[in-house]
Amino acid sequence: MNNDISINQVKYSKVNQLDFNNIPLGKTFTDHMFVCDYENGEWVNPRIEPLQPIATHPAAMALHYGQAIFEGMKAYLDPDGVPMLFRPEKNAQRINESADRMGMPAFPEELFLEGLKQYVAVEKNWIPPQEGSALYLRPFMYADEAFIGMRAATHYKFVIIASPSGPLYNKRIKLWAEKQYIRAAQGGTGEAKAAGNYAAAIRPTEIAKSKGYDQVLWLDAAEHQYIQEVGTMNIFFRVNDEFITPKLDGSVLKGVTRDSVMKLLQHLGYKVTEKLISLNEIKEASNNGSLKEAFGTGTAVGIAYIEEIGSDEDTIFVSEESPVAEKINDLLNQIKTGKVEDPFNWMVKAEIVTAS
Amino acid sequence: MNNDISINQVKYSKVNQLDFNNIPLGKTFTDHMFVCDYENGEWVNPRIEPLQPIATHPAAMALHYGQAIFEGMKAYLDPDGVPMLFRPEKNAQRINESADRMGMPAFPEELFLEGLKQYVAVEKNWIPPQEGSALYLRPFMYADEAFIGMRAATHYKFVIIASPSGPLYNKRIKLWAEKQYIRAAQGGTGEAKAAGNYAAAIRPTEIAKSKGYDQVLWLDAAEHQYIQEVGTMNIFFRVNDEFITPKLDGSVLKGVTRDSVMKLLQHLGYKVTEKLISLNEIKEASNNGSLKEAFGTGTAVGIAYIEEIGSDEDTIFVSEESPVAEKINDLLNQIKTGKVEDPFNWMVKAEIVTAS
Repeated sequence: MNNDISINQVKYSKVNQLDFNNIPLGKTFTDHMFVCDYENGEWVNPRIEPLQPIATHPAAMALHYGQAIFEGMKAYLDPDGVPMLFRPEKNAQRINESADRMGMPAFPEELFLEGLKQYVAVEKNWIPPQEGSALYLRPFMYADEAFIGMRAATHYKFVIIASPSGPLYNKRIKLWAEKQYIRAAQGGTGEAKAAGNYAAAIRPTEIAKSKGYDQVLWLDAAEHQYIQEVGTMNIFFRVNDEFITPKLDGSVLKGVTRDSVMKLLQHLGYKVTEKLISLNEIKEASNNGSLKEAFGTGTAVGIAYIEEIGSDEDTIFVSEESPVAEKINDLLNQIKTGKVEDPFNWMVKAEIVTAS
Repeated sequence: MNNDISINQVKYSKVNQLDFNNIPLGKTFTDHMFVCDYENGEWVNPRIEPLQPIATHPAAMALHYGQAIFEGMKAYLDPDGVPMLFRPEKNAQRINESADRMGMPAFPEELFLEGLKQYVAVEKNWIPPQEGSALYLRPFMYADEAFIGMRAATHYKFVIIASPSGPLYNKRIKLWAEKQYIRAAQGGTGEAKAAGNYAAAIRPTEIAKSKGYDQVLWLDAAEHQYIQEVGTMNIFFRVNDEFITPKLDGSVLKGVTRDSVMKLLQHLGYKVTEKLISLNEIKEASNNGSLKEAFGTGTAVGIAYIEEIGSDEDTIFVSEESPVAEKINDLLNQIKTGKVEDPFNWMVKAEIVTAS
């Protein structure tokens, strides 16, 4: 494998066309993409090139057999204007755990990190400086071999694209505890960040929204009783002064924000327990007054405060305020933007390492 | 919606370059593709055009969130050389059942059938005349909107491509009863022909093959005891003179071959029962001598004869011969190629309706 990344920059950046105070969600892309091809058993030709459509054979296996995985991460500017990445090594590891479950080749972690740093350095001007804004990064891998038949592909592309995202308003959300549809079951692909998991969630989420809820609370496949995740986020509950979150059982995504929130809560002196959590247990905690807060965690939103959980049977009231979750959210944002000390050395600078 | 299909044919067909007696599996494609776009809430611009790579934005949602479904079917030549389709209306219906589960728009069944007929007529010379050969057809739909975010896409492509396939040797297969990984769970997407289901099966199938087995026998997600499917096929067991097959519970694919085999077995006077089938029940039937045959059914292979089922605990011997399954397979093949009467009026002619 040759780790030398070739860089072909655009002559004229489109960044001046973007109003950083009014960024359309999810459909503005930066000038470039990072691309690497897998062929003959190795990753070759890592390159940063102008963002453009990729000529894709209609039999490209990802479109038929779903070998497609991704990561989500964000780049921020520190007070000196240096681009910063949040725990990128966690994403480099996780995409390979996803690859393993989906029968896809591992992508070298070193090249993942180096490619990401160089890419972010090239796209530095696209990182919104506004409070709460960031450059969303989307590394992904998919099977692009043209083949009709069920087997692992032999040709893949690893790509990173980026989209600036404006400040998020963390409105309090209402969850629908879904007892018919599931997102994932043990032995399935729930722990992988695989395209198919997200596709499975789209219709149930639409149904929940039509009932007036914001997100689906996903329950286990066997009994529809044990809590897995919320929407595309992990979930935490505060019962008195203990925080509980579903344990990783193979059907729960190993969230980087989940792990970070656990460490920050412990850093602040709270007890955090990973365990099997039933909906009934949360209902009892609500009834007896010990349920103080609940929130979702994920890269896209950060922390989403949960107000109530509805289901076919009843409504579980959570809370009108989320003081500890807000404190954690603020702390996390300040660490990511270099405004406070980084107690765990999470931040990595994306420095310019090549002349363009 | 405008159902008029525009046709742009290649000047020179590549069909003469193909050795019909030695067709490489899954990687030879015909000259054209059928394409239709979904935009602004409707399907527009149905067209048959030269097969070529499709310019695909790297943020195309199918590559990230897995909204991708497909169908598999085959075209045959009848003794007069007329192209024939096998129960195409079943595939037209099923792709829309898949679309519904995956939050994707329905494709008009009439246009599916008309597009398919015209497409097959254009590609008629690609249908191998050899016994047991056919032109495999792959209708599929995927989200091609460039968007980062979890919601149903607003832009899709519906495409049909085709690949000639040579005669299949139906070797007797050994199954591995998989008790760790699952293909699908109730409430999931198992009944949909969705890309993600296939991706989930790739790694477990590789593991089964490394143990010396040909395909995975998929069991239920909750107890790893009830039989769902085999590989990408439905499964039947013959216990004495009764045929049993897993009932459709939302995690089993509604196979067109499954339905056809059930009807043919009944036509020949056999009792067929759809029910919950446990691995223990099959083991007991093997032990007491009442298990006579087992076979998989699917479009790609037709009927696959099962010899034995291995698992962590023991091996269930099925049979060394599959006389009834072979009779059904022959009958099915003769119906598809117009060599015997078509008792259920399954075959549909793909006649040339436009001058080229």
